[in-house]
Amino acid sequence: MPKTTVYYFPLKALGEGIRLLLAYGGEEFEDRRVAKEEWPEMKPKMPFGQMPILEIDGKKYAQSSAVVRYLGRKYGLSGKDIEEDFEIDQSVEFYTDIRTKAGAVFHEQNEEAKARMQAELEKNYYPFALKKLDEIIKKNNGHLALGKLTWADFLFAGMYDCFKKILQVPDLDEKYPSFKKIQDTVYAIPKVKAFADKAPKADY
Amino acid sequence: MPKTTVYYFPLKALGEGIRLLLAYGGEEFEDRRVAKEEWPEMKPKMPFGQMPILEIDGKKYAQSSAVVRYLGRKYGLSGKDIEEDFEIDQSVEFYTDIRTKAGAVFHEQNEEAKARMQAELEKNYYPFALKKLDEIIKKNNGHLALGKLTWADFLFAGMYDCFKKILQVPDLDEKYPSFKKIQDTVYAIPKVKAFADKAPKADY
Repeated sequence: MPKTTVYYFPLKALGEGIRLLLAYGGEEFEDRRVAKEEWPEMKPKMPFGQMPILEIDGKKYAQSSAVVRYLGRKYGLSGKDIEEDFEIDQSVEFYTDIRTKAGAVFHEQNEEAKARMQAELEKNYYPFALKKLDEIIKKNNGHLALGKLTWADFLFAGMYDCFKKILQVPDLDEKYPSFKKIQDTVYAIPKVKAFADKAPKADY
Repeated sequence: MPKTTVYYFPLKALGEGIRLLLAYGGEEFEDRRVAKEEWPEMKPKMPFGQMPILEIDGKKYAQSSAVVRYLGRKYGLSGKDIEEDFEIDQSVEFYTDIRTKAGAVFHEQNEEAKARMQAELEKNYYPFALKKLDEIIKKNNGHLALGKLTWADFLFAGMYDCFKKILQVPDLDEKYPSFKKIQDTVYAIPKVKAFADKAPKADY
């Protein structure tokens, strides 16, 4: 059996989708949660100086969406052809745009700039983008693409608590129950649930 | 023969990779360059209110990286298995991170915030990230992945003039000749060159 390890901070965020997919795939893996104090020493050993990293028998896989796509294809959670794979990628890229914009504002250090950028997103971007995302999920029977479970749902589900935190849009669960429902759907899969029940708790 | 159209602004930027791949694939397509004045009327008809859009027999394909990946797989410019496809995706995601960070700063309206953000990237991010990108290309025989031509090179080549513009790092061609070389390699492919020679000129 290959030796599989996930390296990430003690967070869900960008690492959780990888963990959930490995659990779904029935993979035994070391869930290595790297404390902040350990990171400076480990950082230079990671391919892009970043985590999450998936390591299988010494080969390191970096860049979280690429890793999740890879595992999704491995475990039969991708499309049946390039047309279907495109549908998944299209939804994921749109979602990633929203997440990236939210993240840039969330991590802005200057409080005045941050408030201005957040107001701008709340006025001119989120109402459109979140409504569109909600429409996509509704059109796909509660999934991000293809009307069924794909790796995109794992990426979304694993990130969702962090997504809420960085988005800072109040009552997101209530405004767009379809978002929370994807998270619930993925975490209700028996192998995923078994993993999550035993995993260290993280707020986001 | 399917009716194929690319809708994008009269720019290279995010649309050019799609055009170049269609040319590489020997596809006849309408290269529809949408003027700024036309856009407000067209915007609501586009899937995410954005361009570029690839349209094939009425089906619209949105999200530029997803479209480029789709065309790359269609024309045999992807990996031979999920391991190889992962290598391409990993490089593309890393490159996209750089481009997205640069774009966020470039489009910042507040001059003071912009200068501060640019200085921050130039100090703490670009030296590492651009060197890493350069290393990846060198390791891959002048390509972004797999040591050979893939769709990632088309995405990079089409975007490169815009990448330079938004990055605002002086003398990028001289500092990292490997970057410019990917652009030259892709534009030297006979079918790509034939398209580019006849296409409307755009600075970036």
